[in-house]
Amino acid sequence: MRRFRVPDVVIRRLVIYLRILNEMELETGPHYISSQELGQRAGVSPAQVRKDLASFGEFGKQGVGYEAHNLREELRSILNQDRPIKVAIFGLGELGRALTRYLNRCPHGEECDVFHITAIFDSDPRKIGQTFEGVQVSPPDALPAKMEREGLDIAIMTVPASAAQMVADLCVQAGIQALLNFAPVKLFVPDNVRVHYSDVTLELQQLSFYLS
Amino acid sequence: MRRFRVPDVVIRRLVIYLRILNEMELETGPHYISSQELGQRAGVSPAQVRKDLASFGEFGKQGVGYEAHNLREELRSILNQDRPIKVAIFGLGELGRALTRYLNRCPHGEECDVFHITAIFDSDPRKIGQTFEGVQVSPPDALPAKMEREGLDIAIMTVPASAAQMVADLCVQAGIQALLNFAPVKLFVPDNVRVHYSDVTLELQQLSFYLS
Repeated sequence: MRRFRVPDVVIRRLVIYLRILNEMELETGPHYISSQELGQRAGVSPAQVRKDLASFGEFGKQGVGYEAHNLREELRSILNQDRPIKVAIFGLGELGRALTRYLNRCPHGEECDVFHITAIFDSDPRKIGQTFEGVQVSPPDALPAKMEREGLDIAIMTVPASAAQMVADLCVQAGIQALLNFAPVKLFVPDNVRVHYSDVTLELQQLSFYLS
Repeated sequence: MRRFRVPDVVIRRLVIYLRILNEMELETGPHYISSQELGQRAGVSPAQVRKDLASFGEFGKQGVGYEAHNLREELRSILNQDRPIKVAIFGLGELGRALTRYLNRCPHGEECDVFHITAIFDSDPRKIGQTFEGVQVSPPDALPAKMEREGLDIAIMTVPASAAQMVADLCVQAGIQALLNFAPVKLFVPDNVRVHYSDVTLELQQLSFYLS
């Protein structure tokens, strides 16, 4: 199955299913989970659960359901959560620091635990060379060397809107495949690079609509 | 039109249209914009633009398009962006501080400018009574009094996952209508309260799927 053919919304649900199965690992309870129960916990229909999972293989047994631990391992593998994911932060402002702390202090076994901030980039000469949470701050033009030396999977962009496209271009050139952009601006990248957005102002604007 | 009947995705597009019109205000250019151009800039079809806007009134003229400034004002009104929106922060950790700074220092005229952090709540006795960005930190149980005195429209929750539902319950009881939740946990609230989620781990897990 071509990864880029799977609709975003299906991937989002797989992440939710994985979260539910992770919670179940902590419970002492049934080793099997039905599409009914998984759907109920995820807020979707049992048919939707079966369809989502069937795209990736034969995981369940008719009338019995899914073996929970096994399905969890399968989802971890499908979502590349079975190996450490190397993350770079661009922009060590307030938000960059908050995210670095959050990810690098993630308790063992929690979902954030697979993500490791392995590089921090900032263009401020006063920050370059300093160490934050055990990671040395580099100038953006050090990205290609860093990429070659340790590889980086995802870039988190917490730079000002005016710098965001330039930083995205740098990341694309260096071969980073996925960007999580906190700057309130749409980015233009090639089709083989994924961008997700986290835009607080946009969320607040949407929420405002519902105020009476 | 009942506000709760409008699909989320339409509201999201209205926000995007407003953003495009705000950018146009800065340009010296045509005073009219066609559904074609608005659609192209927003990444949707012209028919979708017309349908989205038609739900809220008759804004365009056949063959001429929409008068840009007028449509902007209409959208600002529909989205309640024509008045200050009072926001409370729950949890003055790293992320809470980053968001408070971001919103309260938003440059005049930018979209974030309508949102004002007017209350900050934290349960840490060492933080209570202190002032951050001109706002005094209160204990959570001060919410009802604060609500009565100044009213609060939206709560931003940057509390630990374990405290999130409790804080959501407090907000609901106090009459806050909209929550933006950064804790990685699903919240249960009555139908008349809106919750949006901003979940970095979930975004990173989704992005990981596309890594080769």
